[in-house]
Amino acid sequence: MIKIAIIGGGNVASHLTKTFHETKEVSLVQVYARNIAQIEHLKHHTSITNSLELLIDADVYILAVSDDAIPEVSSKINGNHLVVHTSGSASLESLQNKGRKGVFYLLQSFSKGKTVNFNEIPFCLEAENKKDLKLLETLAKSIGSKIYHIDSKQRKSLHAAAVFVNNFTNHMYKIGADICKEHQVPFEVLQPLIQETALKIKELTPEAAQTGPAKRNDQETIQNHLKLLNKKQQEIYLLITKSIQNNGEKL
Amino acid sequence: MIKIAIIGGGNVASHLTKTFHETKEVSLVQVYARNIAQIEHLKHHTSITNSLELLIDADVYILAVSDDAIPEVSSKINGNHLVVHTSGSASLESLQNKGRKGVFYLLQSFSKGKTVNFNEIPFCLEAENKKDLKLLETLAKSIGSKIYHIDSKQRKSLHAAAVFVNNFTNHMYKIGADICKEHQVPFEVLQPLIQETALKIKELTPEAAQTGPAKRNDQETIQNHLKLLNKKQQEIYLLITKSIQNNGEKL
Repeated sequence: MIKIAIIGGGNVASHLTKTFHETKEVSLVQVYARNIAQIEHLKHHTSITNSLELLIDADVYILAVSDDAIPEVSSKINGNHLVVHTSGSASLESLQNKGRKGVFYLLQSFSKGKTVNFNEIPFCLEAENKKDLKLLETLAKSIGSKIYHIDSKQRKSLHAAAVFVNNFTNHMYKIGADICKEHQVPFEVLQPLIQETALKIKELTPEAAQTGPAKRNDQETIQNHLKLLNKKQQEIYLLITKSIQNNGEKL
Repeated sequence: MIKIAIIGGGNVASHLTKTFHETKEVSLVQVYARNIAQIEHLKHHTSITNSLELLIDADVYILAVSDDAIPEVSSKINGNHLVVHTSGSASLESLQNKGRKGVFYLLQSFSKGKTVNFNEIPFCLEAENKKDLKLLETLAKSIGSKIYHIDSKQRKSLHAAAVFVNNFTNHMYKIGADICKEHQVPFEVLQPLIQETALKIKELTPEAAQTGPAKRNDQETIQNHLKLLNKKQQEIYLLITKSIQNNGEKL
């Protein structure tokens, strides 16, 4: 049985702790959080600590801490253990432990309190050697099913792509909500369209799914929309419209 | 029983034809398409025509034609009938019939061949008087359940908002897919994140759902992402990042 320790008290750490605790194939031997109150509720189930000096022996240490904290926290983990971080943007080299290194990146947006279906989450794994990659794979398979080998360079590009499809998409929702609010239209009217837009991409490529005035170069509608928008919204509308049309030209 | 005629041979027209044909509360008396081949398969179920001169009597004529075609097509419908268009961007006044006017706008993105659940689609209704609005409401309720009274000004703003949450969001997916392709990462890795981003907005406001490097002003990650992107992607990344941060400041 693989012995693991989870380092972190935030969202990702708490979701990982919960699911690994429920998995019989893995032994969660310890959880660390700087603020012990965050993990106090675990004390009857596993060893908890707020001191990196008191870490006990484990096969894999999973660091679910902020990117900034990875070098310092990892440097405190002695011995030839496998230490992995869970960051999409930090490199493998940001780990400062003397032993083996790897990455255990879960490409999903975690919310506090919301149940996570780990079978739906892509696990992006990286390690310095095949044996450790295999170890991470076994670990990932104990809680999930979508497993990918993604190297540091790929992971960084994936993280940038994730910003577009998650953070920037959410900002498109925000602008939509702002426009609705300004014109006394309930935002809920847009909900089915938002859901359909996301579902469509399961079946079609983004190119095939693209519709709208930019795509068909409907200048009258474009001008009508611009009149309704404030300066900042106009700037975004024009730039994305141009970008959609440029993509069309390349075809 | 309300007698209706559907004018149009495209996506919206064919989905409306199908669902109204299946509804017992409404009598679909005729379908018109310029290209008769598009509606040939209906000939055993209802009257079909490709001549506006041969339109027969109906209580409501539903125009599901392009915005450009609305004035001309509507001008051919004589008598004091209710004529409605289904456009998000055309005004009520674009209807050129001498009789009564209204709007029957379905805020959803329709795809050919994909089944539509009309119960999930918002019907945005407008008419010149209460009686006609009531008539459109009865019509909408015979096939759907989400019914809103939206005037022309509100509808135009809603259409602009829809461009952000649908067309522009899809373009965010496109850029994500481009980045993946360039770095040999399968786009499917991003699918669960895309779905989660859309689902989250059912429960949270876009403000509350916003995460990412822009939101937390993580300059190191932002700079790392910019290095990975081409010029056009950079321009969009910077503008949306700035917009997310400006929204933050206003709080």
